[in-house]
Amino acid sequence: MKHTTQTTIIIPFHDIDVMGVTWHGHYVKYFEIARCALLDSINYNYEQMKASGYIWPIIDMRIRYPQSAVFNQSITVIANIAEWEHRLKIEYQVLDAETSQRLTRGYTIQVAVDATTGAMCLESPAILLKKLGISE
Amino acid sequence: MKHTTQTTIIIPFHDIDVMGVTWHGHYVKYFEIARCALLDSINYNYEQMKASGYIWPIIDMRIRYPQSAVFNQSITVIANIAEWEHRLKIEYQVLDAETSQRLTRGYTIQVAVDATTGAMCLESPAILLKKLGISE
Amino acid sequence: MKHTTQTTIIIPFHDIDVMGVTWHGHYVKYFEIARCALLDSINYNYEQMKASGYIWPIIDMRIRYPQSAVFNQSITVIANIAEWEHRLKIEYQVLDAETSQRLTRGYTIQVAVDATTGAMCLESPAILLKKLGISE
Amino acid sequence: MKHTTQTTIIIPFHDIDVMGVTWHGHYVKYFEIARCALLDSINYNYEQMKASGYIWPIIDMRIRYPQSAVFNQSITVIANIAEWEHRLKIEYQVLDAETSQRLTRGYTIQVAVDATTGAMCLESPAILLKKLGISE
Repeated sequence: MKHTTQTTIIIPFHDIDVMGVTWHGHYVKYFEIARCALLDSINYNYEQMKASGYIWPIIDMRIRYPQSAVFNQSITVIANIAEWEHRLKIEYQVLDAETSQRLTRGYTIQVAVDATTGAMCLESPAILLKKLGISE
Repeated sequence: MKHTTQTTIIIPFHDIDVMGVTWHGHYVKYFEIARCALLDSINYNYEQMKASGYIWPIIDMRIRYPQSAVFNQSITVIANIAEWEHRLKIEYQVLDAETSQRLTRGYTIQVAVDATTGAMCLESPAILLKKLGISE
Repeated sequence: MKHTTQTTIIIPFHDIDVMGVTWHGHYVKYFEIARCALLDSINYNYEQMKASGYIWPIIDMRIRYPQSAVFNQSITVIANIAEWEHRLKIEYQVLDAETSQRLTRGYTIQVAVDATTGAMCLESPAILLKKLGISE
Repeated sequence: MKHTTQTTIIIPFHDIDVMGVTWHGHYVKYFEIARCALLDSINYNYEQMKASGYIWPIIDMRIRYPQSAVFNQSITVIANIAEWEHRLKIEYQVLDAETSQRLTRGYTIQVAVDATTGAMCLESPAILLKKLGISE
């Protein structure tokens, strides 16, 4: 019941700052691309969330940057679901795609919000547990 | 009946590329900030467009770059309405805010699309002419 | 010896996502604009850092999102220096500029890296303390 | 002696605006990703340009938008070299990757600038013609 995906991204020129490395804010995009792939893999992507009656805004995000990445570098973003009961916590590791050197890591936390009432859910709705294969 | 606005923008660090100048794609954002100010000035901004029953997608854009801009540079974006009868053409000049040196220029072309039917309008709807003070 | 700045930003159209709110990754830009203003205020901005022989990469960042922001909303970003001895920790609060409602908060952590050797400094170099008015 | 590449890009969530389509400015990024692939294919990419003693800033860009693209859509960007004698003009077509429906098209124009003197070249330097297989 391990939910993990790996996504490969090639760093584009427009993500590189004047220091010659990826500007630190662009990792939020790389995390999102990996998160979308992970949520696709459990059949609970953005469209399926909406159809289920919930939206899942991000309420917390943290990124640590031990190493930087450069133009044209292939990076692998490993995303895995770390918590799901009360909130959806996804962890990310960014590695160099060739050497597997660890570059960046972080997490995002999302909570379910009822799309009709706008109320934040204190427990994850049953649909998430079903998608994760934990319950019927 | 001249419709023109001037907007000042300070180039942020995250817009600077590895060559030490503003990456060319970011001027699309500067044009948009200036365009929103211009459309605010005639009371026909994004919200008012929607309320009038039309959306105005951009169908054509051109940008010329005689000079580059650098981090922390203050730029003035002058936007003016150049055509309105069949389409909304807005022209932009980007100047250094202090020296008035010309850095960049360009235009965007938008057409009215009926928000209900999705049909593109061959002539600009009456609401635009009214907002421009050309007709009642 | 309190080092704080307030920066006002108007949310641009291109920062709004399909949910009608600012995409969560754009706050990294707002933090950076506020951080640059704060570092300007102590005469230790990007250029002055380079001239002092150090670069200050961000090694850690966290953002919490209690409330979202919308198109054209004026936000105030309050930035203050929270730690400086071994690393430079800057804290941010994002408020609605009119109501002062708290929207977002977070921090960034930077460390000094010797621009010549590339070595990370375990203590902040004397130049930072001088800029902060703590030492001569 | 046709120089053309095809690049496939999946539209990410953070490129979608409040209208539910790709914000028009993001196509500059898609063009750039395709241009880098094209220049890689003739062994004259960004690094090789620098090594040859020239930089090639973009001085003109045009984009036309007959159709929009949506989240998660696969697009194919076809890039081809249209002019090279006095300047480097690259044309782009953006198609839906599955149906080949034409979505967007445009061009960029770059000129050679001598990296040492900063002088703009009125004719493309010999290195470009060599890379294109036109001359020895």
